[in-house]
Amino acid sequence: MSTATTSTATTPTLPSDRPPPGYRPLTEASLPDYLASLDEIRARLGGRPADWQVREVGDGNLNLVFLVDGPAGAVCVKQSLPYVRSFGEAWRMPLERAFFENSYYSIVGPHVPGLAPAVYHYSPELYCITMEKLAPHIILRRGLIAGTRFPKVARQVGDYVARASFFTSDLARPFERKLDGMALFARNQSLLRITVELVFADPYRVMERNRWTSPALDGIAAQFRADGPLKAAAARMGQRFLGEAQALVHGDLHSGSVMVTEGDSRVIDPEFAFYGPIGFDLGAFIGNLLLAWYAQPGHASEGDDRAGYRAWILEQIGIFWESFRATFLALWRSEAAGDVYPASLFAAPGDAPALEAAREAFVASLFADMVGFAACKMIRRIFGFAHVADFETIADKTRRAACETGALMLARTMLLHPEQFTRIDDICDAAARFARDI
Amino acid sequence: MSTATTSTATTPTLPSDRPPPGYRPLTEASLPDYLASLDEIRARLGGRPADWQVREVGDGNLNLVFLVDGPAGAVCVKQSLPYVRSFGEAWRMPLERAFFENSYYSIVGPHVPGLAPAVYHYSPELYCITMEKLAPHIILRRGLIAGTRFPKVARQVGDYVARASFFTSDLARPFERKLDGMALFARNQSLLRITVELVFADPYRVMERNRWTSPALDGIAAQFRADGPLKAAAARMGQRFLGEAQALVHGDLHSGSVMVTEGDSRVIDPEFAFYGPIGFDLGAFIGNLLLAWYAQPGHASEGDDRAGYRAWILEQIGIFWESFRATFLALWRSEAAGDVYPASLFAAPGDAPALEAAREAFVASLFADMVGFAACKMIRRIFGFAHVADFETIADKTRRAACETGALMLARTMLLHPEQFTRIDDICDAAARFARDI
Repeated sequence: MSTATTSTATTPTLPSDRPPPGYRPLTEASLPDYLASLDEIRARLGGRPADWQVREVGDGNLNLVFLVDGPAGAVCVKQSLPYVRSFGEAWRMPLERAFFENSYYSIVGPHVPGLAPAVYHYSPELYCITMEKLAPHIILRRGLIAGTRFPKVARQVGDYVARASFFTSDLARPFERKLDGMALFARNQSLLRITVELVFADPYRVMERNRWTSPALDGIAAQFRADGPLKAAAARMGQRFLGEAQALVHGDLHSGSVMVTEGDSRVIDPEFAFYGPIGFDLGAFIGNLLLAWYAQPGHASEGDDRAGYRAWILEQIGIFWESFRATFLALWRSEAAGDVYPASLFAAPGDAPALEAAREAFVASLFADMVGFAACKMIRRIFGFAHVADFETIADKTRRAACETGALMLARTMLLHPEQFTRIDDICDAAARFARDI
Repeated sequence: MSTATTSTATTPTLPSDRPPPGYRPLTEASLPDYLASLDEIRARLGGRPADWQVREVGDGNLNLVFLVDGPAGAVCVKQSLPYVRSFGEAWRMPLERAFFENSYYSIVGPHVPGLAPAVYHYSPELYCITMEKLAPHIILRRGLIAGTRFPKVARQVGDYVARASFFTSDLARPFERKLDGMALFARNQSLLRITVELVFADPYRVMERNRWTSPALDGIAAQFRADGPLKAAAARMGQRFLGEAQALVHGDLHSGSVMVTEGDSRVIDPEFAFYGPIGFDLGAFIGNLLLAWYAQPGHASEGDDRAGYRAWILEQIGIFWESFRATFLALWRSEAAGDVYPASLFAAPGDAPALEAAREAFVASLFADMVGFAACKMIRRIFGFAHVADFETIADKTRRAACETGALMLARTMLLHPEQFTRIDDICDAAARFARDI
C-alpha cells in the first residue's frame, strides 16, 4: 500500500438530506392504495386492491422494487430510496435517479421495441416508476451462475445497444436533440460520481469502501495500486467516460441489468444513464460475460465441470459484438438523418467507399473503447466496493481468488496492451490464456 | 457539381421571430440614457450623459457595438441583434447569444487575467454587455493584413487557450462543474448550428449561401465536392466538434476575435462558446494565421514583398503552439484538482513517468485535432458563406485566387494526410510547399 494515499474523495451526498414533501417510501401495505389511485394501473391489475398480491423483491443497492399481481394483470413498481441500500442510510442518494431512469426509457424506449420493459406511469412526487412486470424472466447474471443457456440474449442485447446508441447519436438526429438530452442528463451527477470514483479510481487507491478476497489477492491489489501505466490507462478510460458525448448510454449495462427467458431479453435499471461513450455499455456487458466465464470453475459440480458452458459464454461475446456491429452499421447505412456525416455530403455513388471506411473506423474506435471499459469494469468488481454474485457465490475463498486472478490478469492486459485486441476473437482467445487451474 | 446535391438544411431561425418585451435595439441617440441608468457605468464614464461621445462601430455579423467615451473613462457596449447583420433580417438569430457570451466571460474570465476584456454589466432584458473599451487595440486580422508585427500575441493567445481550456476541463475541477456548464451551453444551439453547417458541411456541397472567387476556383470547388475521402475527413472533424466535451471553448477564435497592441492581447466575441474540443480553438487560430500567410503576396507593394512578414507569421504559429503546450502541461502538473487523472491515483514518485506520458499523449491528441480543425476553418473561409478580409481585400481576383489555392491545397493535405503533421514545424514547412507564385 506504500504507493497509494487514502483518497479524500467524499461519499456522495444529497444537496439536502431531507426528502421533498410528498415523498414517502412505499410499503407492501401502502402500495395498493397508491396504485388504485392510478386509473390505468387499476384497470390493468383488475379486481379490487385487496385482491392484489404485493411482494417487495428489491435486491439491488438503491431502490425498493415491488411485484404486484392482480386478477387481470401484473405490474412492477420501482421507487428510489434516499440512501444506498446496501451501505446504509449514511450514504445519501438523490431520489431524482427515478426521474433519470424514466427519462431514459422515454427517449430510448421507442427505438428498442421488445427489448425494454414497458413503462406505464411515473410519479414525480414519489420518484416511482410503474412498469411491466417481467415474468417468467430471471436476471441474466443468475442464469450465468446457474449455467443456463439463453440462446437469444447476446444477439438481442447487441441489437439493443446498437439501436439505443445509434438513435440517440448525432448520426441519427439533429444535434440539437442530443444537446437537449445532454442538458437533462447533465443533472444525473450523483450517479455519475459513483461510476467516476468506483470504476476509474477506487480500485487503484486505498479506500475504506474497497474490499477483495483477502489475503489471497492482497499482493495483486498492491501491484495494481503501484502500477503507474495501468493507472494511467484506467484514468484515460475515465477521461473518455466523462468526455465522449456520443449517445445516451445506459451506464450500468452488466448482466444484472438484463432480464431473460429463453427467447426474450429486456434491459432494465438505466438510472445511471447519461450522454457518454457507446463503448461503456459494450464494455460493461462483455466485461461481465468475461467475469462469468472466469467464475465458472467455481460453480463446477461433480457431474458438470462447466467446460461446455464456458465455451458457450465465449461464443456469446462474439455474437454480442457482431450483432452490435452489424445492427449499428446497418442503421447508419439506412437511417442516418443527423448532422454528423450528413447525407447531403455523401449523395454521389462515388462517395460510398469513403463513407463506408469512415463507418468502419468509427466502429473500430467503439471496439477499442469496449476493450478498455470492459477491463475497468472487471477490475472494479474484484477490488472495489460493489462485487458480483458470479464470484461472491463461490464459497471457497481459494477457489474464488483463483477465478478472480484470471479475470484480473486479462483485464490488466487489455488496459496495458490494447493493441493486442483488435478483433473480438482476440478477446475470446486471450481469456483462456489467463485462466488459472483451481 | 454532379456529385453534390442541394442541401435541405434550413437557415437557423428563432423559436419565435418576435423579440421579448423590454428588448429594443440601442442607438447612438438612446444609448446614453441606458448607460446613465447604470450607477457603476455612469461613474466610470464621468460627467453628464450629454458629454459622452457615442460611436456605433460594429462590423461583425451579429451585433451592434458602441464605443462610448466620457470625461473620466470609456466603455464598449455590445448588443445582440435578432438577425444576421451581414445577411439581412431574413436570417433570424436568437438574442440569447449575448447571454452565452456573458456566461463564458463569467466562467473563463477569472482564469485569463489580462487576456480578455473586463465585463462591467450585463442586461438580460436588452441582451447587452457593457465592458472595457480596448484602446488603442486593433483587430489582429487587420494588423496581419497591414503587415504589422505584434511581438506578444502568439504567446499570449497560446496562454489564453491553455488557461481557458485547462481550468474548464475535468483535469482541473470536479466533473460536476463541467456538467453544470454543459447544461447551460447546451442551449447555445443556434450558433452551434452555424458552425456545424458552415464549417463542416457547406464547403463540400452545393449551397446557395456559398461563394468563392469564381471562375478561378470553380474547378477546385467541384473537386472538393467530389472528393469522398476529403468529405469524410471533414465530417469526422464535425463529429469530434459535437462529441468531444473537453472544455469550455471559445468557438470562434480566429484572428478577428483577438484585439492587440504591441504588448497586449485580448480575446473577444466568445458568443459561439460551448463545451467542445480544445483543438477547435487551437485550429481556428492557426488556421487563420495560415490564411494570413497565404494572403501576404496579395498585399505586397513595390517596396515590400512581404517575405519577411510571412516568415514572421510562420514563427508565430510555432510560438502559439509551444506556448499553449507549455502552459497547458505546466497547469496540469501543478493545478490538477479534477476527477480525471486524479491526484490520489498518482501520488507516488514511481507514478510520475506514466502520468507524464499520459499528459504528452493527450497534448498530442490536441495537436491532431488542431490540424484537422485548422484545415476545416481554412476551407470554409474560401468556399463557404463567411470569408476573411485577408483574401477579400486582394482586389485582383487572379492574385486572390492564387493565394487561396495555396491555402486550399495545404488544408486538403492536412485533412487527407494527418500523419504528415505531428510537429508544429511540419505545418510551417508544408505551408511553403503549397504556396503559388502570383
